Amino acid sequence: MKLIRFGAAGQEKPGILIGEKRFDVSSIVTDYNESFFAENGLEKLQKALESNPSLPEVDADVRLGSAVARPSKIICIGLNYVDHCRETNAPIPDEPIIFFKSTTALCGPNDDLVIPKNSEKTDWEIELAFVVGKKASYVAEADAMDYVAGYCLHNDYSERAYQLERGGQWAKGKGCDTFAPLGPFMATTDEIEDVNNLSMWLTVNGKTYQNSNTSNLIFKIPFLVHYLSQFMTLLPGDVISTGTPPGVGLGIKPNPVYIKVGDVVELGMEGLGSSKQVAVAYK
Amino acid sequence: MKLIRFGAAGQEKPGILIGEKRFDVSSIVTDYNESFFAENGLEKLQKALESNPSLPEVDADVRLGSAVARPSKIICIGLNYVDHCRETNAPIPDEPIIFFKSTTALCGPNDDLVIPKNSEKTDWEIELAFVVGKKASYVAEADAMDYVAGYCLHNDYSERAYQLERGGQWAKGKGCDTFAPLGPFMATTDEIEDVNNLSMWLTVNGKTYQNSNTSNLIFKIPFLVHYLSQFMTLLPGDVISTGTPPGVGLGIKPNPVYIKVGDVVELGMEGLGSSKQVAVAYK
Repeated sequence: MKLIRFGAAGQEKPGILIGEKRFDVSSIVTDYNESFFAENGLEKLQKALESNPSLPEVDADVRLGSAVARPSKIICIGLNYVDHCRETNAPIPDEPIIFFKSTTALCGPNDDLVIPKNSEKTDWEIELAFVVGKKASYVAEADAMDYVAGYCLHNDYSERAYQLERGGQWAKGKGCDTFAPLGPFMATTDEIEDVNNLSMWLTVNGKTYQNSNTSNLIFKIPFLVHYLSQFMTLLPGDVISTGTPPGVGLGIKPNPVYIKVGDVVELGMEGLGSSKQVAVAYK
Repeated sequence: MKLIRFGAAGQEKPGILIGEKRFDVSSIVTDYNESFFAENGLEKLQKALESNPSLPEVDADVRLGSAVARPSKIICIGLNYVDHCRETNAPIPDEPIIFFKSTTALCGPNDDLVIPKNSEKTDWEIELAFVVGKKASYVAEADAMDYVAGYCLHNDYSERAYQLERGGQWAKGKGCDTFAPLGPFMATTDEIEDVNNLSMWLTVNGKTYQNSNTSNLIFKIPFLVHYLSQFMTLLPGDVISTGTPPGVGLGIKPNPVYIKVGDVVELGMEGLGSSKQVAVAYK
């Protein structure tokens, strides 16, 4: 299944995508949130759909929200592509680098990107994200995929000055509002034949900056589930973003490139659709 | 008012503390969560109490949960006491250092502290935390106190090896389950005469390790609300922990002291009560 959420920001309803068509499943499901994943919602929804219910079709121009509801946490993996380490002059990590993104950063896949006030270094990062399907604590790598509900396209926007020049930790540059467009949809794991072989691309104003494949990930999803679950309990619906390949604005030589108001960022991943954000000023 | 939450973990009900007595207010309020604070819940509760309703008294031995429900985020301030910077050999920051604590770390004030598997460097940090009362984005320092609902005692437990020796960011050592006992209660701002003059203490097995006063904070609450709200929207019910004074285990010379199974950590702050955690092994 491909899960979508649609409607006005903060009032999204759950839906599914079948081919190009969107259907409203709010008569079956409340939302794609912690309770949904915890209470076996995916299986229940699948069963309900097998009885061929008559579902209202959703207009193609209705806004999409984040593919899943606000989770308890968004955990991101830093420097998880060898080439991205090189472009940012960072050593290749011995074990995953992790940080949190404020969950208030979450937004729809095609929502405007709001450049923070006084910001000059907003940057893009296409990433494969996955959604946790059940409560995970000290999970063995061999069992890890039982804890994964599905995958999403994610743009881990980052304000590089806030992240790197404002003292200490990365948190300041990662959690600005609209810095986590997630979707267009969450594909359940069965929809993706090989999650370690998905091509991906990102353009700014039509020029390609990122062009890679998940085959280049240093730490892959089963290890990440295992690893993260040693440090904290992962809850159903939590979002983990696996890191970005080379081609971010910060890494461009000789001069980094950052996003200006009016710029158009488009990105896509094999099997996970595409998204588009237009940069606007904070109002 | 002094807000408490009581009952089994995950099934807490809201209550209030009057003198030493606890009362159940679940007939008036659902929980002390984002909706409660967003919808002017404090004022509504205060009004409801003024009509002298007959409230069930709660047994003194009932477990207390975290003083507020799981928030969208727990933001912590690092190195916010001059002397704590010195003891950890860290420079005094020019601006606040911030990091997130996983919200799954939240627990009751007297719950057991679970030492993570294979952990050898679990450390304590008494802190003054505050709870956000309304949605805050780009708030002026002069207006900041309008966005604060109240204060809590917090122990920002930290696994120093996970935090400092496992690559990159602090996130790994701050978010372990049970690493954020919050409470015993949230005092509304009117309960505390001068939040910048609260004495505090922390003991391990009866020996005093931390003994300071919030007058030593480098960055105070109004500035923190202003500052944080430049980087992300703060939501009602969010918890901000203001940093710890000197006396953490990591800073003890010549050899750091860490918590072992069976150790008893007790802490208290003027006007905000006390809490006690017994260290246990992960089961």
